[in-house]
Amino acid sequence: MEGVDHLAQERSRAQFDVDQMKLVWHGSRHALEVSDRIARLVASDPVFKKDNRTMLSRKDLFQDTLRKAAHVWKRIGELKLTEEEASRLRFYVDQPSYMDLHWGMFVPAINGSGTEEQQKKWLPLAYKMQIIGCYAQTELGHGSNVQGLETTATFDPKTDEFVIHSPTLTSSKWWPGGLGKVSTHAVVYARLITDGQDHGVNGFIVQIRSLDDHLPLPGVTVGDIGMKFGSGAYNSMDNGVLRFNHVRIPRNQMLMRVSQVTREGKVVQSNVPRQLLYGTMVFVRQTIVADASSALSRAVCIATRYSAIRRQFGPNDSGVETQVIDYKTQQSRLFPLLASAYAFRFVGDWLKWLYTDVTQKLQANDFSTLAEAHACTAGLKSLTTSATADGIEECRKLCGGHGYLSSSGLPELFAVYIPACTYEGDNVVLLLQVARFLMKTVSQLPSGKKPIGTTSYMGRAEHLLQCHSNVQKAEDWLKPVVILEAFEARAIRMSVSCAKDLSKFASPEEGFAELSPNLVDAAVAHCQLIVVSKFIEKLQQDIPGKGVKEQLQILCNVYALFLVHKHLGDFLSTGSITAKQASLANDQLRSLYSQVRPNAIALVDAFNYTDHYLGSILGRYDGNVYPKLYEEAWKDPLNDTIVPEGYRKYIQPLLKQQLRNARL
Amino acid sequence: MEGVDHLAQERSRAQFDVDQMKLVWHGSRHALEVSDRIARLVASDPVFKKDNRTMLSRKDLFQDTLRKAAHVWKRIGELKLTEEEASRLRFYVDQPSYMDLHWGMFVPAINGSGTEEQQKKWLPLAYKMQIIGCYAQTELGHGSNVQGLETTATFDPKTDEFVIHSPTLTSSKWWPGGLGKVSTHAVVYARLITDGQDHGVNGFIVQIRSLDDHLPLPGVTVGDIGMKFGSGAYNSMDNGVLRFNHVRIPRNQMLMRVSQVTREGKVVQSNVPRQLLYGTMVFVRQTIVADASSALSRAVCIATRYSAIRRQFGPNDSGVETQVIDYKTQQSRLFPLLASAYAFRFVGDWLKWLYTDVTQKLQANDFSTLAEAHACTAGLKSLTTSATADGIEECRKLCGGHGYLSSSGLPELFAVYIPACTYEGDNVVLLLQVARFLMKTVSQLPSGKKPIGTTSYMGRAEHLLQCHSNVQKAEDWLKPVVILEAFEARAIRMSVSCAKDLSKFASPEEGFAELSPNLVDAAVAHCQLIVVSKFIEKLQQDIPGKGVKEQLQILCNVYALFLVHKHLGDFLSTGSITAKQASLANDQLRSLYSQVRPNAIALVDAFNYTDHYLGSILGRYDGNVYPKLYEEAWKDPLNDTIVPEGYRKYIQPLLKQQLRNARL
Repeated sequence: MEGVDHLAQERSRAQFDVDQMKLVWHGSRHALEVSDRIARLVASDPVFKKDNRTMLSRKDLFQDTLRKAAHVWKRIGELKLTEEEASRLRFYVDQPSYMDLHWGMFVPAINGSGTEEQQKKWLPLAYKMQIIGCYAQTELGHGSNVQGLETTATFDPKTDEFVIHSPTLTSSKWWPGGLGKVSTHAVVYARLITDGQDHGVNGFIVQIRSLDDHLPLPGVTVGDIGMKFGSGAYNSMDNGVLRFNHVRIPRNQMLMRVSQVTREGKVVQSNVPRQLLYGTMVFVRQTIVADASSALSRAVCIATRYSAIRRQFGPNDSGVETQVIDYKTQQSRLFPLLASAYAFRFVGDWLKWLYTDVTQKLQANDFSTLAEAHACTAGLKSLTTSATADGIEECRKLCGGHGYLSSSGLPELFAVYIPACTYEGDNVVLLLQVARFLMKTVSQLPSGKKPIGTTSYMGRAEHLLQCHSNVQKAEDWLKPVVILEAFEARAIRMSVSCAKDLSKFASPEEGFAELSPNLVDAAVAHCQLIVVSKFIEKLQQDIPGKGVKEQLQILCNVYALFLVHKHLGDFLSTGSITAKQASLANDQLRSLYSQVRPNAIALVDAFNYTDHYLGSILGRYDGNVYPKLYEEAWKDPLNDTIVPEGYRKYIQPLLKQQLRNARL
Repeated sequence: MEGVDHLAQERSRAQFDVDQMKLVWHGSRHALEVSDRIARLVASDPVFKKDNRTMLSRKDLFQDTLRKAAHVWKRIGELKLTEEEASRLRFYVDQPSYMDLHWGMFVPAINGSGTEEQQKKWLPLAYKMQIIGCYAQTELGHGSNVQGLETTATFDPKTDEFVIHSPTLTSSKWWPGGLGKVSTHAVVYARLITDGQDHGVNGFIVQIRSLDDHLPLPGVTVGDIGMKFGSGAYNSMDNGVLRFNHVRIPRNQMLMRVSQVTREGKVVQSNVPRQLLYGTMVFVRQTIVADASSALSRAVCIATRYSAIRRQFGPNDSGVETQVIDYKTQQSRLFPLLASAYAFRFVGDWLKWLYTDVTQKLQANDFSTLAEAHACTAGLKSLTTSATADGIEECRKLCGGHGYLSSSGLPELFAVYIPACTYEGDNVVLLLQVARFLMKTVSQLPSGKKPIGTTSYMGRAEHLLQCHSNVQKAEDWLKPVVILEAFEARAIRMSVSCAKDLSKFASPEEGFAELSPNLVDAAVAHCQLIVVSKFIEKLQQDIPGKGVKEQLQILCNVYALFLVHKHLGDFLSTGSITAKQASLANDQLRSLYSQVRPNAIALVDAFNYTDHYLGSILGRYDGNVYPKLYEEAWKDPLNDTIVPEGYRKYIQPLLKQQLRNARL
């Protein structure tokens, strides 16, 4: 059966041009070409093999990761890859390592918070990897709340140095990736203390290991924090613990772009606006949203292909069992996730634009859109990562029992993905930030202040607070204006209702604390509206290719109507739609599923993932699942011997015993 | 800080008698005593240590499991434990092994499907563990659908034997626990073929390994199917693959309690009613529901304790950060799970009664309640396992970043628990069975046939289909009758609405397929009603102890009102309650959370879990979290050396390189 495409029939049913859809997914012909070429490069290089990863011990996995990271670096040099190509290479190698933090956090931190002089000194070393850096912010006792950090950086005017110190156990740096065993340097966040005064948290470049023998420098205690969720997964990363015992660094290793400490120990604000730092945050969150669409599409690709291969019950007319993808229960769980993957991709593309826009405005000293951009990216980070984490696990369940096997790729994908819900802002904390912004926007409506960007719909509050959806038949739900109005009405009504309830409290903060679960719900409603509206905007563009736009239209409607079903309580309790209209939405959704069905395999083919990247026997392109599952099983270390180690000691004596256990 | 109880202040705030609550949770003083004694026995035995489990390689983990299993058996004998005590011992050892399948599936299968003669021959061997058995039903290509199994058992009248054979790759037995490396025997499910005729699936006792040297018998190919989700977790189990090449067994090894094959190869039905086998199914599902409450309560215990230790933001008046358990967003996610743990416990207790009841009726040849009991247990299995799987992961998220560490215990608990959603009936498939029963019940209403058991509320269809909830203020939601009526109205209206929609289809089967997502929703509504009503029934009993009943009343209301919020779309779209009433329910829920808050720690203490069983640093009884997390980190193998293995080969060359990578 080698060489046979078991999904060929499925592929032949597609009603659209898959190659054109690949272009849409990747954003441009260039991006697709780079992505495709680098993915194949990785897949064909034996060093990047990863199919035995979940069987490796922690030490072996870590060695494997070091080997891959060094090989990545070597190949980048040999092939003279561009920055874009190098980044795709790291992406497709698909194994978390210190490189991610070095390039993704250490270098950007110096870029964003270092002075020109500091950049000139440190960046060339970092670019050449003559030093390896990480980002040491969170502490054992302090996660989301940066202002609660305990590590101190006390200025000593006598020697013109800072003394970095961990005053308590809970101030130990904890979690930074790359810190545990590899990094030579760290950007350490610590409370700046001069002349006995606490000036709040700032970043400092601290060398932690010798460049000669890699031993921790005096006063530095550093190690790995131990095993994390899953096998393989994030265990390839040396997340670390770090304690300082009065470690001295020169004054010029404080990152001084915004605040500076003078030779005399005075804290001076530079003329660089603090807001500039928020630009970086928008950038980081944009990449997280893009990663969400990658991870979710990967899980959906596996679950969709295997749902077409797997058969259960039936039998249908031809005497074989029914493909599980033909069951409406399967479709109603799988296709909304497929639609979500596309939705997140497009909202991620839009965020790239937003980042450019914000950056340009910042450079022109225009901070007017910053708060809105900040709230919007916070919300989208939260929304897409939560939905992706849940979606991966749902895809695993959609694969039945076999989804539980490591060789399905889904357990590791779940385990490696879920930290995204916590890092760069806990998802609930972020939603509360969104809610705070929404409450402020609502409170300013009476003053006539025009809401901007993703909140501009609130400018139509008068209409949205009292409009009635005019859906009368199921097809009405296909109209973008109808969908948008329902989502806008729901979102603004939830926000306004929260604002009203808040006003009943004596203190706004007490009200905010008490009503926070409702505020979170309102924030979710707002963020879902953003995703839906960006999908709709995407469809207003010219999209070439036979049937491509039609398929995306179907997915957009699936995404929106699925949310109507899932959050029906919101839509009904706010009176945005009626129960009858909800039932029509449901009817329409069912018929949309039937339209997705023949295109499902082609829609996941459009992601253009190699079997190497997917890392899943269930998701194989050729659908040759069962023979390969069978083959794979025998590779488990337990099958090295026919009779298991331990038989003589622990099994044989049982079987050979004379009856002693009288009572059983 | 050793010996200090960091949660003492929390414990002193409890408004009820914790010891009395322990009695309620455990069901009886005797059960509590046994449970407590055995839990301590396990915790104090060094062989049962499990804190390094997630760091072990597959082989080492398996050896560790064999060692523990043998030690369990030894201790049971030495201490002459009763069956109840032995079962608790296996429970608290908390490591899946072949023993679970031997005692939980192999022995019961012979008990349930074997003739008296067969029981006499095989059970003594099994009880003494002179043979070790497993339960080989599912196949590589066939999960839920038993009727689709491909393995054949062909009667050969010449030799009076059955020939067990795997005709295809997909017919390989796949998944059975204990099969991979340990079992000597298996109950194999295969198509019974005599005289060229297929008589459907039956069970056969087949020896697969030699009792002398443990080698597979001729014609038998057997091995482990490889790594599964997570580290530690279910990887201690040798789930297996098994193929037969014309393996012969004597005719009397077919399990013949219901169907028999005569010497001539004729298939004869015995006078034992087939329904008897359903009794076993009710029993197995009852244990699964009990396990759900154990797993969920364990996760909730960890998350609750750590939420009281962990502080974020604030600061509150005393200048320290706020305990995260004081945040309403935390409470609104955590306390419904705490309430669910209790709810599942009580519905599990009720299922024990139901099993006794069904068994007595079966013995009296009364099958009248069987269909209802079957539907009800199917639904409760599905509901409780899905909620528990999601709940464990939610608890992990509620612990923030540290929940991602293996030492939190939550990753392994999740990984080891989730198969419960798939085994013994996929949860969605089971809900469709419930829906089928509900549709039948609805269709019989006009005939005047009285619905029984958990469907008896449907007898009041006339009232429930048109009643209006008379909630007028938030406190009205505390009345059991009000809650019950809302849940009953919602459930029956969803069922009746499905039935109406079904009647529009030409063929009922087509309608059932098309509307299956709605049918699943209706089944969930019905099952949630069961859990709520059994909780309410529990509270109608006499429950002694200061404040105990009051606390349970609060939890019961939290459970119900949380469901109203979560499934608001159902309640509103069926007109069971109004939007205004929903908002009052939400207000009431918030105030209930405040009432749970001071009792939260004591409510999880009542589960009486040892630190050994919890297996979580975050969930430690004494709350001494951070020093122990710090200590634990250093035990990781990566910290065996200060400079990591691989430094010279993969890191040093990077740091020492001359600039080659010009473009970066």
